[in-house]
Amino acid sequence: MSAPQGFATDLHPRLAADCHPLGRTALCQLLLYRNDALPWFILVPDVRAAELHELACAERAALTREADALARYAREALACEKVNVAAIGNLVPQLHVHVVGRRRDDPCWPGVVWGRLAPDRPYGERAILRLREDLRSAMGLVPEAAGAPPEPPCP
Amino acid sequence: MSAPQGFATDLHPRLAADCHPLGRTALCQLLLYRNDALPWFILVPDVRAAELHELACAERAALTREADALARYAREALACEKVNVAAIGNLVPQLHVHVVGRRRDDPCWPGVVWGRLAPDRPYGERAILRLREDLRSAMGLVPEAAGAPPEPPCP
Repeated sequence: MSAPQGFATDLHPRLAADCHPLGRTALCQLLLYRNDALPWFILVPDVRAAELHELACAERAALTREADALARYAREALACEKVNVAAIGNLVPQLHVHVVGRRRDDPCWPGVVWGRLAPDRPYGERAILRLREDLRSAMGLVPEAAGAPPEPPCP
Repeated sequence: MSAPQGFATDLHPRLAADCHPLGRTALCQLLLYRNDALPWFILVPDVRAAELHELACAERAALTREADALARYAREALACEKVNVAAIGNLVPQLHVHVVGRRRDDPCWPGVVWGRLAPDRPYGERAILRLREDLRSAMGLVPEAAGAPPEPPCP
């Protein structure tokens, strides 16, 4: 898949196949894993680094801010009881961060989701529109087609 | 288990049982999971927060710095091919961050380690001493009994 407008890096085919695109943040493409059993977001920063510790300082800070905003959204707006945040990348080398809202009645609890939940319960279009709308205010998400969102200042 | 000297929070009994203590950093207790099949570090910040996004700004930045230093150590000094970094906490509510060095010949590759590797291959004393010595220079680790290491400035 070619890079979205304004992005330098292409999305890995596995991420493109397994996820719905939600939009873009200051640093990342934001994806939603195709299983509505639990809210599983994936942030894909527009960088060439393969590991978190290889990011430039401002990129690392921005990624942390965006993961935290998603985690807060999962806990507060989606009433998740826990959030799992992880950079794994054993199968997909493109750097990406999972932010997964967890509930005691989800199909993987208390285990982790990776390797245990296939992308086989896609969301309805209305649910995706609702998430996009929510995340526009929660973390400055803009649609893929729009211009890049304003870069927040480095703290 | 009571809090280590200079720390306000006790270590969760499950972390204490499953890990070797390595020492302390500016913000955290540093643990080593009791399985020498792969280098699995756990950072336990001395805070009351249960989620990463609940940390104060300086704490969040310090935890990121410390996780990055460990990941760099795993990649460069231990020659790991990938690093998995995760805050999960479904079973142990005390906030902690896993930094796991991965290799293609480790027993869980390419799957994740959580739920798949029991703490049943403890390290020898010499290997632990070597890690403590290495990490003293790599990330300012000090032994539990020593005073708190100097707090780095907030960037």
